[in-house]
Amino acid sequence: MTSPLRIGVAGLGTVGAAVCDILLNSQDLLGEHVDRTIALCGVSARDREKDRGVDLTGVEWFEDPVILAKDPGIDVFVELIGGDSGPAYDAVSAALARGTHVVTANKALIAAHGVDLALRAEESGAQLSFEAAVAGGIPIIRTLREGLTGNRIDKVFGILNGTSNFILTEMEKSSRPFADVLKEAQAKGYAEADPTFDIEGQDTAHKLCILAALGFGIEVSDESLCVEGISLITPEDIRSAGELGYRIKLLGYAARKDGDWDLRVHPAFVLLDSPLGAVDGVTNAVVLESSLLGQLVLEGPGAGGQATASSVVADVCSIALEKARPAFGRRAASLRRTNALPIGDIVGAFYLRLTVQDKPGVLARITDECARHDISFATVLQRGTDPDGNVPIVVVTHACQESAMDQAIATINEMPETIGSPKTIRIVDL
Amino acid sequence: MTSPLRIGVAGLGTVGAAVCDILLNSQDLLGEHVDRTIALCGVSARDREKDRGVDLTGVEWFEDPVILAKDPGIDVFVELIGGDSGPAYDAVSAALARGTHVVTANKALIAAHGVDLALRAEESGAQLSFEAAVAGGIPIIRTLREGLTGNRIDKVFGILNGTSNFILTEMEKSSRPFADVLKEAQAKGYAEADPTFDIEGQDTAHKLCILAALGFGIEVSDESLCVEGISLITPEDIRSAGELGYRIKLLGYAARKDGDWDLRVHPAFVLLDSPLGAVDGVTNAVVLESSLLGQLVLEGPGAGGQATASSVVADVCSIALEKARPAFGRRAASLRRTNALPIGDIVGAFYLRLTVQDKPGVLARITDECARHDISFATVLQRGTDPDGNVPIVVVTHACQESAMDQAIATINEMPETIGSPKTIRIVDL
Repeated sequence: MTSPLRIGVAGLGTVGAAVCDILLNSQDLLGEHVDRTIALCGVSARDREKDRGVDLTGVEWFEDPVILAKDPGIDVFVELIGGDSGPAYDAVSAALARGTHVVTANKALIAAHGVDLALRAEESGAQLSFEAAVAGGIPIIRTLREGLTGNRIDKVFGILNGTSNFILTEMEKSSRPFADVLKEAQAKGYAEADPTFDIEGQDTAHKLCILAALGFGIEVSDESLCVEGISLITPEDIRSAGELGYRIKLLGYAARKDGDWDLRVHPAFVLLDSPLGAVDGVTNAVVLESSLLGQLVLEGPGAGGQATASSVVADVCSIALEKARPAFGRRAASLRRTNALPIGDIVGAFYLRLTVQDKPGVLARITDECARHDISFATVLQRGTDPDGNVPIVVVTHACQESAMDQAIATINEMPETIGSPKTIRIVDL
Repeated sequence: MTSPLRIGVAGLGTVGAAVCDILLNSQDLLGEHVDRTIALCGVSARDREKDRGVDLTGVEWFEDPVILAKDPGIDVFVELIGGDSGPAYDAVSAALARGTHVVTANKALIAAHGVDLALRAEESGAQLSFEAAVAGGIPIIRTLREGLTGNRIDKVFGILNGTSNFILTEMEKSSRPFADVLKEAQAKGYAEADPTFDIEGQDTAHKLCILAALGFGIEVSDESLCVEGISLITPEDIRSAGELGYRIKLLGYAARKDGDWDLRVHPAFVLLDSPLGAVDGVTNAVVLESSLLGQLVLEGPGAGGQATASSVVADVCSIALEKARPAFGRRAASLRRTNALPIGDIVGAFYLRLTVQDKPGVLARITDECARHDISFATVLQRGTDPDGNVPIVVVTHACQESAMDQAIATINEMPETIGSPKTIRIVDL
């Protein structure tokens, strides 16, 4: 029997409390797999008095997570504080500096500083693990890092934000507008008081950058990434999508493209029978396409204290059992800094919804304007006039270059017959 | 740089040739992840002259796989011979005896001797890995062994045989009978010349036993397992399933049941919108239900040389990077020998199809007979008479005990009005 593996946990929110509960109360389950005692030795959080539903008697309390991270009595520092700077960054840096292993669920931290932290981990011989940072309980990091060696990964994409997917699913079920459903999601605890990060795509972008680093060995600059959220999606868009055989999903998408990298986060029309078409509610799904394996789909709970804690604990147990593995599955120094392809260069089909005055020749002018930019139409839905006497039109285009679509839209937008602004949503073939 | 990891591959069929090709020609991809040269040093197969599409010049040829397995110049022995005895068993035993790591895709061998071989691997400090033995390229072994530590696994089930799923999918698409589609599958290379193992459920049973060992820590006796294949499924059954909102899938199913183990392999009605309802063709899918994570679904290619080779290579690379892990994720001595619950004790709903003479009161007698055994009907489909003037009836029952259903069927079978034998297919709520 080797010596116990001593754990310090900083951050005792839902996930942190669940991790402590498992480490303290599921020793039997852990012991089945890990021939070494895993001992929770220290914890740190802001409020010592708060009832977290787990008895921490006998576990040393640290006011300062950095002091916990530096404590020589700790072999693994579990960071569940959150945020890409401040105490989370300081504590993780301090732990790695002294060779203490780090397990974190902090996607913002890893997206912003992952490669730098991985370098420091390699220097000190520590393991840096973050299975819980992407897609909660789904073992996607492990699969990319260890399960596909020998494959060239060609695409990684998925539904990576449970809050957005819950909102889109509810909008579809109840035909209610975004704002209404967001309120419901907040009431149910599926959305934060400030939901911006989730609904505007930043959370998905962080996770996508982590997946791209693991899959492609690249470090994508944040500014080069097209990131759009779901707050402008309307019930009409969702209804049109359904009529056309699609559903709208907030997509994180990363693919090799002739030596460049097509990375983006935006709402997308995806075919109902594509691997993401049936993923509902807070469920996450990740699709990997690789040279030997073809398509692999992993689907499961993307959030929730227990599911996320499950990934944290699996990382801790791997440290108990294994030699250190490079955080991104390869030497951190080998990760190439790169930009995503400009979104204007991307070629794809579009859903286009606009309203025009009920005058002869308007649809023809729109068609001509699009044709001038090499944009042709696959489907046009036009069904009479709306209550104001105007004509709503829904178009599905064939594949075209995005910059051409932008130019066509700009011209159409200036036509006197156009009411309001045309709306586009990208259609992605999965 | 540590010394190279020296590999010997025995068995050079589709998978073996693909493994050699990757080891010889994808050193760049492997080198990204593994900081150690992986060298193919020896191979063994029956026919040295056969063209396998990979240049093995410079790789030592062994006539006898056992000699290769014992060769001190080999660190990892890759067994792709197949079969649960004979040269595969002898060679794997020989390798483990001298502490040589073993990677195998051989489900029959692991199902029959896995625990015994795992014990020997532990004794000699060797790793025994078999990711490729279950669900081809899907990293399900790794997920069960390493990704869910801290979870109590409650259920493992899935579509584990690509041949059967291809046949069922084609039968549905083309409304053709089983025998026709089997011939097509054989012509396309999706079914063996002797397809018994795949279509009668034995292959699924082997994989299910391996999953149960990993998930539950049990070693299930073969004889206690209910194993039924798909050869008796007719186009009528498939059509009825569709009408009722189900699809028919060959299911491997394992669940905890009040301290007992509900394990079985049989064709099942599964709801179209359940996680297995949309899995078509040669694709495999595995669903895990566990205490922290809830439901996790992994879907991908279940067979094929490259996909299977991908799993073999991932296992080899893990050996290059890791300390040995117990083959079944826990000490082999801790695996409990157990029986599956008798299938008669299982409670579930049934699809029941029978044909009766067109006489008054026949359906009432059938209903009464079932009621006598506590079997009630959820749906009855009866639509006129068939060309012979008889009445085909399709019934979906509420949940009942299987032994009760057997008794009811026996009585119905003896009614003079019953034509042919009633047919039942289990309905499984996933």
